[in-house]
Amino acid sequence: MNDTTLKSIAKSLVPENYLSLANDARAERDKQIKLLLEQRKLPLSGWSEPMIEYCISELALLDSNNFPSRCGVGEREGRVICDLVRRRHYNFAHGIGRSGNLTDAQPKAAGSTIMANLTNSLVRDLIRSIGIPSCSHAIVVPLATGMTVMLTLRAIHSKRATSRYVLWSRVDQQSCFKSILAAGLTPIIIDSLLTPECTEQSLNASKSPFATNLSEFASKINELGAETICCVLSTTSCFAPRSSDDVVELGKLCKAHGIPNVVNNAYGLQSSYYCHQLQQASRTGRIDAFIQSTDKNLLVPVGGAIVAGFSDVDTVDAFARLYPGRASGTQSLDVLMTLLSLGRNGYENLLQERKQAYDKLLEGFTNLARTHGERVLPCRNLISIAMSLVSFETSSGRLEMIGSMLQKRGVSGCRVVSTADSKTIDGNTFQAWGSHCSKANVPYLTASAALGIKPEDVANFLAKLDEVLRQYRTKYMDHGK
Amino acid sequence: MNDTTLKSIAKSLVPENYLSLANDARAERDKQIKLLLEQRKLPLSGWSEPMIEYCISELALLDSNNFPSRCGVGEREGRVICDLVRRRHYNFAHGIGRSGNLTDAQPKAAGSTIMANLTNSLVRDLIRSIGIPSCSHAIVVPLATGMTVMLTLRAIHSKRATSRYVLWSRVDQQSCFKSILAAGLTPIIIDSLLTPECTEQSLNASKSPFATNLSEFASKINELGAETICCVLSTTSCFAPRSSDDVVELGKLCKAHGIPNVVNNAYGLQSSYYCHQLQQASRTGRIDAFIQSTDKNLLVPVGGAIVAGFSDVDTVDAFARLYPGRASGTQSLDVLMTLLSLGRNGYENLLQERKQAYDKLLEGFTNLARTHGERVLPCRNLISIAMSLVSFETSSGRLEMIGSMLQKRGVSGCRVVSTADSKTIDGNTFQAWGSHCSKANVPYLTASAALGIKPEDVANFLAKLDEVLRQYRTKYMDHGK
Amino acid sequence: MNDTTLKSIAKSLVPENYLSLANDARAERDKQIKLLLEQRKLPLSGWSEPMIEYCISELALLDSNNFPSRCGVGEREGRVICDLVRRRHYNFAHGIGRSGNLTDAQPKAAGSTIMANLTNSLVRDLIRSIGIPSCSHAIVVPLATGMTVMLTLRAIHSKRATSRYVLWSRVDQQSCFKSILAAGLTPIIIDSLLTPECTEQSLNASKSPFATNLSEFASKINELGAETICCVLSTTSCFAPRSSDDVVELGKLCKAHGIPNVVNNAYGLQSSYYCHQLQQASRTGRIDAFIQSTDKNLLVPVGGAIVAGFSDVDTVDAFARLYPGRASGTQSLDVLMTLLSLGRNGYENLLQERKQAYDKLLEGFTNLARTHGERVLPCRNLISIAMSLVSFETSSGRLEMIGSMLQKRGVSGCRVVSTADSKTIDGNTFQAWGSHCSKANVPYLTASAALGIKPEDVANFLAKLDEVLRQYRTKYMDHGK
Amino acid sequence: MNDTTLKSIAKSLVPENYLSLANDARAERDKQIKLLLEQRKLPLSGWSEPMIEYCISELALLDSNNFPSRCGVGEREGRVICDLVRRRHYNFAHGIGRSGNLTDAQPKAAGSTIMANLTNSLVRDLIRSIGIPSCSHAIVVPLATGMTVMLTLRAIHSKRATSRYVLWSRVDQQSCFKSILAAGLTPIIIDSLLTPECTEQSLNASKSPFATNLSEFASKINELGAETICCVLSTTSCFAPRSSDDVVELGKLCKAHGIPNVVNNAYGLQSSYYCHQLQQASRTGRIDAFIQSTDKNLLVPVGGAIVAGFSDVDTVDAFARLYPGRASGTQSLDVLMTLLSLGRNGYENLLQERKQAYDKLLEGFTNLARTHGERVLPCRNLISIAMSLVSFETSSGRLEMIGSMLQKRGVSGCRVVSTADSKTIDGNTFQAWGSHCSKANVPYLTASAALGIKPEDVANFLAKLDEVLRQYRTKYMDHGK
Repeated sequence: MNDTTLKSIAKSLVPENYLSLANDARAERDKQIKLLLEQRKLPLSGWSEPMIEYCISELALLDSNNFPSRCGVGEREGRVICDLVRRRHYNFAHGIGRSGNLTDAQPKAAGSTIMANLTNSLVRDLIRSIGIPSCSHAIVVPLATGMTVMLTLRAIHSKRATSRYVLWSRVDQQSCFKSILAAGLTPIIIDSLLTPECTEQSLNASKSPFATNLSEFASKINELGAETICCVLSTTSCFAPRSSDDVVELGKLCKAHGIPNVVNNAYGLQSSYYCHQLQQASRTGRIDAFIQSTDKNLLVPVGGAIVAGFSDVDTVDAFARLYPGRASGTQSLDVLMTLLSLGRNGYENLLQERKQAYDKLLEGFTNLARTHGERVLPCRNLISIAMSLVSFETSSGRLEMIGSMLQKRGVSGCRVVSTADSKTIDGNTFQAWGSHCSKANVPYLTASAALGIKPEDVANFLAKLDEVLRQYRTKYMDHGK
Repeated sequence: MNDTTLKSIAKSLVPENYLSLANDARAERDKQIKLLLEQRKLPLSGWSEPMIEYCISELALLDSNNFPSRCGVGEREGRVICDLVRRRHYNFAHGIGRSGNLTDAQPKAAGSTIMANLTNSLVRDLIRSIGIPSCSHAIVVPLATGMTVMLTLRAIHSKRATSRYVLWSRVDQQSCFKSILAAGLTPIIIDSLLTPECTEQSLNASKSPFATNLSEFASKINELGAETICCVLSTTSCFAPRSSDDVVELGKLCKAHGIPNVVNNAYGLQSSYYCHQLQQASRTGRIDAFIQSTDKNLLVPVGGAIVAGFSDVDTVDAFARLYPGRASGTQSLDVLMTLLSLGRNGYENLLQERKQAYDKLLEGFTNLARTHGERVLPCRNLISIAMSLVSFETSSGRLEMIGSMLQKRGVSGCRVVSTADSKTIDGNTFQAWGSHCSKANVPYLTASAALGIKPEDVANFLAKLDEVLRQYRTKYMDHGK
Repeated sequence: MNDTTLKSIAKSLVPENYLSLANDARAERDKQIKLLLEQRKLPLSGWSEPMIEYCISELALLDSNNFPSRCGVGEREGRVICDLVRRRHYNFAHGIGRSGNLTDAQPKAAGSTIMANLTNSLVRDLIRSIGIPSCSHAIVVPLATGMTVMLTLRAIHSKRATSRYVLWSRVDQQSCFKSILAAGLTPIIIDSLLTPECTEQSLNASKSPFATNLSEFASKINELGAETICCVLSTTSCFAPRSSDDVVELGKLCKAHGIPNVVNNAYGLQSSYYCHQLQQASRTGRIDAFIQSTDKNLLVPVGGAIVAGFSDVDTVDAFARLYPGRASGTQSLDVLMTLLSLGRNGYENLLQERKQAYDKLLEGFTNLARTHGERVLPCRNLISIAMSLVSFETSSGRLEMIGSMLQKRGVSGCRVVSTADSKTIDGNTFQAWGSHCSKANVPYLTASAALGIKPEDVANFLAKLDEVLRQYRTKYMDHGK
Repeated sequence: MNDTTLKSIAKSLVPENYLSLANDARAERDKQIKLLLEQRKLPLSGWSEPMIEYCISELALLDSNNFPSRCGVGEREGRVICDLVRRRHYNFAHGIGRSGNLTDAQPKAAGSTIMANLTNSLVRDLIRSIGIPSCSHAIVVPLATGMTVMLTLRAIHSKRATSRYVLWSRVDQQSCFKSILAAGLTPIIIDSLLTPECTEQSLNASKSPFATNLSEFASKINELGAETICCVLSTTSCFAPRSSDDVVELGKLCKAHGIPNVVNNAYGLQSSYYCHQLQQASRTGRIDAFIQSTDKNLLVPVGGAIVAGFSDVDTVDAFARLYPGRASGTQSLDVLMTLLSLGRNGYENLLQERKQAYDKLLEGFTNLARTHGERVLPCRNLISIAMSLVSFETSSGRLEMIGSMLQKRGVSGCRVVSTADSKTIDGNTFQAWGSHCSKANVPYLTASAALGIKPEDVANFLAKLDEVLRQYRTKYMDHGK
């Protein structure tokens, strides 16, 4: 409904002076949208639902499948037969990208194109504002993290066709490892360093017992030859007691040897520490791409990731160009709606609440550990916290009961790890699977203060954990001891 | 998103030539909306869902509760606390009307005002196009038929303050009768005429055994004095075997005596016959208002009615002015969305399908009656059909079992009427309640071919009825006979 | 999806142990719904959106229009042709009530019936919990306040057929007065008392200059005779500087003379003071019904009201029985969803926030008045506040410009009242219209701290008002003075 | 709301006998869902929207993010911060698959797991029913066709680690070719055969001028060695005048040499001919996987594909196992809702309508060609039709104007191909790009009768094409000639 429509006509339906206030409001709304499209920056304050839907709907109406009179004789015309499906996609149907490039504009879908590009711009703006100001490229990819890492590896490999190896700092999360295999490359597993002298609550980097084995990385590079190495792959956010990899030193190493460097920053945007490490690494070393999930960092349904990079290397563009064919626009739309609803202030509030929850969780864990004769395992990990379970381990070995007792009480996401397990993936055997390090020998449980957690979640968890540990001791352990 | 927004900005987000086709589409869409607001006539073809929602949403954004920056310090600010509720009302919150008049514009709600006025215009256009071209006023009222009749009576009474009586042609539907009582007026019940000589299938007016007792109306007017009579109240659409009242002759009578004439046209818009009768009555006689439900005539949820009238009397305006305070806009919105989605063609298709279903139902009933030794009761009723159940009536009297057997088979809306019942409402006793006439003595069942009925409904019903009648005879009746 | 469905089948689709936690959650959910249906009390905590929609959808599926296989041959089958309309009504179509009674169960619509009855129960529970524990009946009516007052008067009149008058304590809000006229009754206007000696901030009842003219009520009763009086009609919540009527004393007066007593508690549920007055009046005197809007008290779209009463009189039941025919279920559904989403805690938070906003608004007004040489007009009004504008009144008389200047700044709901106006409604002339009292002579503006107001609304308003008053003085008033 | 809830409680809210019919309906609904979950076959008739949403919502409530009381301390808890996003995903948040396998069950998401598995079963059932009864595996993948082909190649390669080549029957659609490159494999391009003697309308296989160059395939296998070949990749549905590849003969060739065979059946499910070819090929030869888009074959938004296979090879399982990490559940949900809304009958109606539209388009094209002195290019293509433009080609060469003139008239999807173009992708040059064959020398335009096309689309297109061709001749061509 443009100005002409309203101004010239509605007088007979409503007095003009009543309309003029409404027109002012409409102008204000249009101005905000104009500003968004011009500056492509995250608004400071979140938008209301009607405002978001207004903007989204207008964009969707720019796609050819929504043109009032049209005549489609192609093989792909964005027809959606089920109304429920059409509605939930806000009348978007064409997806994003073209056969040539994931970020190319679609002739039939101007609205989808704007939507996707706008989303990418807002995401880049967000990343810059929360600690990585040098970030120059960021795109939302309709693939979860594992597939995105895989395709990033392939994009890098396409420019290093003779390389074969990925130097991978072990992290016991299957999909990251499988990404390397799925890319058709050979993983070289670099086990974490584990220093014995660790004291409780020494949570700074220097004292963390877990560390990236930098010298092993260096020696592997020498052994295999830099040109055979497709890239280094490390991880920031992970389950405690594993620490974030030392991405700054790895960045320097990669720069020194001219080896691409990929960082799995899975849910690391929610921690300013990880963001600053990435920023630092890009300045003093080399990072070709860092990858993070949209679900964990932006609280949308699972299915998307963000590939981001810095201006000196063009891996993000290479990724987009490698992507064969079209892709779902759903993840971009979810991210766009979420970012508009939060605004920068909203996201910063989420970050703060998470930080407070983490502090509360750490304090609670520390007290609980003291009560039960255990300790919080020190590590450079700003999201996940691990508490030892040494005194709960018995010959009868029912440590996993703790996990299932918690689950029955509605606790999800708490992992109980015994060091006894090993796991083989596609011929590669990992000792002490779950502990990220072959030499780990301390059983433990972990919990995370991840984005979106509520203070009451922390309080409930601590209360339930205390109860479970007491019951476990009574029920499954030798009373005499 | 106005032209300026799009044209100047989006180039960096999408190639200009892709946008130009989208802009053409947008212009086409805006042109349709402009046309609608200018002409306020029902579009020929129905609109698509995205188009309807686009138009509705734009209107809602003209209401002050949706202004981006606002500061409300009144007692009624259109605040909606529950998002689910807000969403289902498309962000409309202010209702319609003002304290002074149901059709007055609201300063805070230009969008709601346009919405309601537009709906009224489209409804009037529809009424004119389907057989009542002289209709000059029509408003959608957020009251069901009973309450609307009641308020119409009050609006008429407010101009005939000394009158007390409503001359009412008996129809056995409680809420119509109660409308008179609720209005604080005294009903004078004029029983239907029932001529004995009725032959099967003589469905034209002259042969219908049920007839409006015109002479009784005339004699009551003489008896009570025209000035004591608030109005005459008659009914078109009703359950067979009652016929539509003879609104043409009643109109003449009212005109002759200067008595207001109100017609309950409950679901009569769906029959061109009833529409033509009203049109005829307005030309040769007098009709002050005719009232019909929105649910039955426009297939929306229960809750609204249309009060319509002709230019020579101003009862519709009086109704609007009498209405104290604001009212729900939900019914207007339902009607608007429905009319836009149907278009004139869509509504005419519905009318045709109903007509065909009626013919099929009549044919089926006639055959069934023949098989079971019964007959279709003749009447001037173009929606409902009644079949006698004389041979099913026994001394044990379980005729109502037929209804419940049908219900168990998923048949709803089929009424089984025995003439044995009487009913007392507020001191008024009706003999043979359900038969619309004290002298009725034929038990029967009725079924309707009402708007929205599907051919398969008719077929299923006839099959199930046949089955039920056979089973009933076997089970509940004397086998020997 | 009942237990049998899930338990027996899904094993092949998902491991059984994963399902068992889900089943626990399902059981918990069902238990909450069972509790709600059994106890029919407002839950303490609000429900989540998915939970609310789950419950609502299940209820809707109990209505015959949603039965998978059905065959409808009635004239009203709940058919909804437009999908958009169907969806926004959550598949409800049959409305509520029957021709006999607004609260009667509908055979075709078990779900709608439960929905409406449940809503009434929850509303009654809410009313009881916030200060009127004796409330025994409460029903949500799909009519806005004005129409509801009108129908309440008719319900009372139906039992006092020979009465004609409504003794009405003047309040300058048109729809309340029009309710009496629309009901066909004769209003006897009792002007407010206005005592001259009023000091700033004397907000308790004894010092309020506005008061219900109790002696005039008494003398009118004597003059006209109790039996000619249909009822007394007074008002609690209203625009300052009018005070709430003295419902306690009026209640005693009515009890003494056997006259029905109706209170327009328009938006009074949001103030504990008004609630307590009603409770008190019902104990020491007589209240037949008190009426309040759903939009202002429960923050739903305009269109509904609550008629409530106490056990000694049965006006609420009489109201329901008088209501002719069916009615919209939309208002009940809005209220149900809103109450479930808020829970008792949510509503109490709203009440507290409102109270705080009121205190803040009063403080701000007081300071502003001091700055501008004006005063806050004292009254027994816990929602609306009035500030005098004596020094802004000039011979050129452009006081209304203040209102329009505020409006241009996005302020809505602020009323500027000059005492110069008079208004005639249906032959009745009101001096100083807007001031609720013929003798009022102080120009003023009012603002309300009504339910749902945000602290920033108050702050914004005060800032803008200050700015406007300064500009007004500069622009429209004699600078020399 | 289980049986217990309803049966025991609601009596006080609604009469028991009204509920019993509703309970019957509920039982019927639950029975249909039970049947669906038990048999996992596409229902014969489509389900209503309320029924689909009921089923979907119940499944979503089985996921842990929707449990009423829960306490999440993991890093991924399915939190969705933006209500608009949550709603459009029907409260699903966890995606599908686990790190180990795309089809693995998720402990936290029993509902998502059932939803995804059920969708896969229904899709397999559909594929079997429309012409490929031997299909044993089919999964919906949240990747568009190009990425799915790429990952299929990688899955096959993971079991043939030393192979390098993909023998690819040329089809000029970029994303298919790019899939091979993105997979890190080397394409061997086998140009189409183009026999000169082709006569108009000889649309059967034997006479089509375009043919798969089987002997070139055979000689390449011999030249490179079967073990170096990762797989053969051919295409069924494509733009005319290219024909579908001879998948039956390719299947035999692959079987003979033990080479995997992948078929890009992009939008081939909508043609029974292509389906039967695949079925035939699987019986007489070898097909490891055939891939098709969900948007074109099932009319959902772009973003998904179906990987399907036969029981003798396990490529579909390998694909699922290779997939690293979790994935979006959106595509599965779209497909599930669409299939339930259509039912088998609905899908078969779509197929029939498409077939009729194809016949109509072919007839129209044939007539138009005759009028304009051109011919329909014969080919084995049951969806797309090409008409020569020989007489429109001029030295000035503005053939592309035809396309843009059509576009301006709202025609989308009509391709105008001049044989003059060549294109280089990643170092591979294609002569006569767009014509699928280096030796092609006939300019032409194509249009498709694809699933979802309406009869009026065909009629409109033919009329507009005729108009455009006439105008083009007048405007751009030498009149004298």
